[in-house]
Amino acid sequence: MEPGYTIHKHHHHIGWDNANAPVLTIASGAAVEIETVDSSGGQLSPDSSVADIATLDFDMINPVTGPIFIDGARPGDVLQITLESFKPSGWGWTANIPGFGLLADQFEDPALHIWSYDTQSLAPALYGKYGRVPLKPFAGTVGLAPAEPGTHSIVPPRRVGGNMDIRDLAAGSVLYLPIEVDGALFSLGDTHAAQGDGEVCGTAIESPMDVALTFDLVKGADLAFPRFTTAGPVTRHLDEKGYEVTTGVGPDLMTGARDAVSGMIDLLTAQHGMAPVEAYMLCSVCGDLRISEIVDQPNWIVSFYFPRIVFE
Amino acid sequence: MEPGYTIHKHHHHIGWDNANAPVLTIASGAAVEIETVDSSGGQLSPDSSVADIATLDFDMINPVTGPIFIDGARPGDVLQITLESFKPSGWGWTANIPGFGLLADQFEDPALHIWSYDTQSLAPALYGKYGRVPLKPFAGTVGLAPAEPGTHSIVPPRRVGGNMDIRDLAAGSVLYLPIEVDGALFSLGDTHAAQGDGEVCGTAIESPMDVALTFDLVKGADLAFPRFTTAGPVTRHLDEKGYEVTTGVGPDLMTGARDAVSGMIDLLTAQHGMAPVEAYMLCSVCGDLRISEIVDQPNWIVSFYFPRIVFE
Repeated sequence: MEPGYTIHKHHHHIGWDNANAPVLTIASGAAVEIETVDSSGGQLSPDSSVADIATLDFDMINPVTGPIFIDGARPGDVLQITLESFKPSGWGWTANIPGFGLLADQFEDPALHIWSYDTQSLAPALYGKYGRVPLKPFAGTVGLAPAEPGTHSIVPPRRVGGNMDIRDLAAGSVLYLPIEVDGALFSLGDTHAAQGDGEVCGTAIESPMDVALTFDLVKGADLAFPRFTTAGPVTRHLDEKGYEVTTGVGPDLMTGARDAVSGMIDLLTAQHGMAPVEAYMLCSVCGDLRISEIVDQPNWIVSFYFPRIVFE
Repeated sequence: MEPGYTIHKHHHHIGWDNANAPVLTIASGAAVEIETVDSSGGQLSPDSSVADIATLDFDMINPVTGPIFIDGARPGDVLQITLESFKPSGWGWTANIPGFGLLADQFEDPALHIWSYDTQSLAPALYGKYGRVPLKPFAGTVGLAPAEPGTHSIVPPRRVGGNMDIRDLAAGSVLYLPIEVDGALFSLGDTHAAQGDGEVCGTAIESPMDVALTFDLVKGADLAFPRFTTAGPVTRHLDEKGYEVTTGVGPDLMTGARDAVSGMIDLLTAQHGMAPVEAYMLCSVCGDLRISEIVDQPNWIVSFYFPRIVFE
């Protein structure tokens, strides 16, 4: 469907607030194209260096374009969002931002990688001399305004969505979000060119792009949490050569996740000679955290799957 | 490689104990075929009914065949285990066992499904009138004796492996386990015809089968936790039609996992008319728990991926 509306990227907001004035009102069934600013809020560019990470203004982080008022939407309804297509910009960044990320206690220094990729072919993007990362553009932040008044941080996702960073919210996926306020008040941003399950270092391939969507209102379809449907397989761009997998074993899932990622960083540094922080950022953009078992009391297994195609 | 040795299934033990006498001593490089008893310890059969779940003797649960003493293995070494092939039996069972499983508080009554499948074609196995589950045989319990003396429960996995229930420990995978005792003392059992990441109801398609393996000793390759390499893609038998995905959003990964699985049970019961416990068992044998993001403080997202091919 051709988008009936375009929302330009200067129509963005920081944080969620159901008092934000809509920039567009649409009927159910409408198609919209949304431009986004990258998650640094325009503070980083293809020319940025690691020094720019240390001076990031966090009050500008993760702008989202919107909000869109969906006519007739009421609390208790569900908004069905079809992610039709992505027009990527061809550049992106991945950073280790001190204080942020699964292993923030172990990686205290800023780091930055600037990516360049072909917007037509979307061929795997070069990661220095080490390998190539397959791409799959998606929207990291897709959400609605929460019922609770006031301004809420953009960082945590909520039951109305938001900064979910689910790497399969890509072209063809259909997302269902519970509505808490009249008009739903939809916004989107934080587009990524690639990310693994977990986004373990805290950033993906952060890359501005335009996103085409359609909206449909599902009346009275009460939903506890977001759900979605993928149009087809989700890892075919990654899985052809299989995986290296590390694990964490123990009674706490968070500790298991940290152990599994630490094990993969050790493996990648030993096998490929990269610095630990380089391995950490690479894990974030293409490795997947899975819960292999969560029932063999009292020890669970969290596994980290790294796709071997990156090096082949 | 043709197996040089066969260990029959009566050579099994319950629990881990480094005082168990080896049933076989091999050199690094040897190939072995291992017969297994199903995880009920032979208490269930293709003729069992749900009444048999209530009377299960837990002292017989999860026998493992072994132990095998690997000549020259010392603490600090690593045992490399290549899972060469599986000869499945053609039958299996999945149960809800009261007190066991991710949602044990919500599913208090026993339930049982008996599976039948073709051992040659390994075609997807019929789940009543609802659909067909793609199969991938693997070993749920693969481990070594721990250093700590005494008998240890077979249920929890440890850093030396054990009841890991990692569904990608299938044909072609190469597993690396840290060795804690002289001879490593390897045992294997709990073979499964299919399971999703998480094994959420606590059982998979529990199915006795013979497993062919080769063993190689890696001297001095100290390892914190198990790791493995898969020979190729791990979900191609499942992913062709995409996924239905439910999520849990919040500050605790365990709660998120429970919410995501509960959401999928609600969806499957609404869309396919199956009883909640039937949906729960189906989720266990083919749905996957993934950690979509673990960095957007303070709320993480756990997602449950259910393959749509089951119904198509």
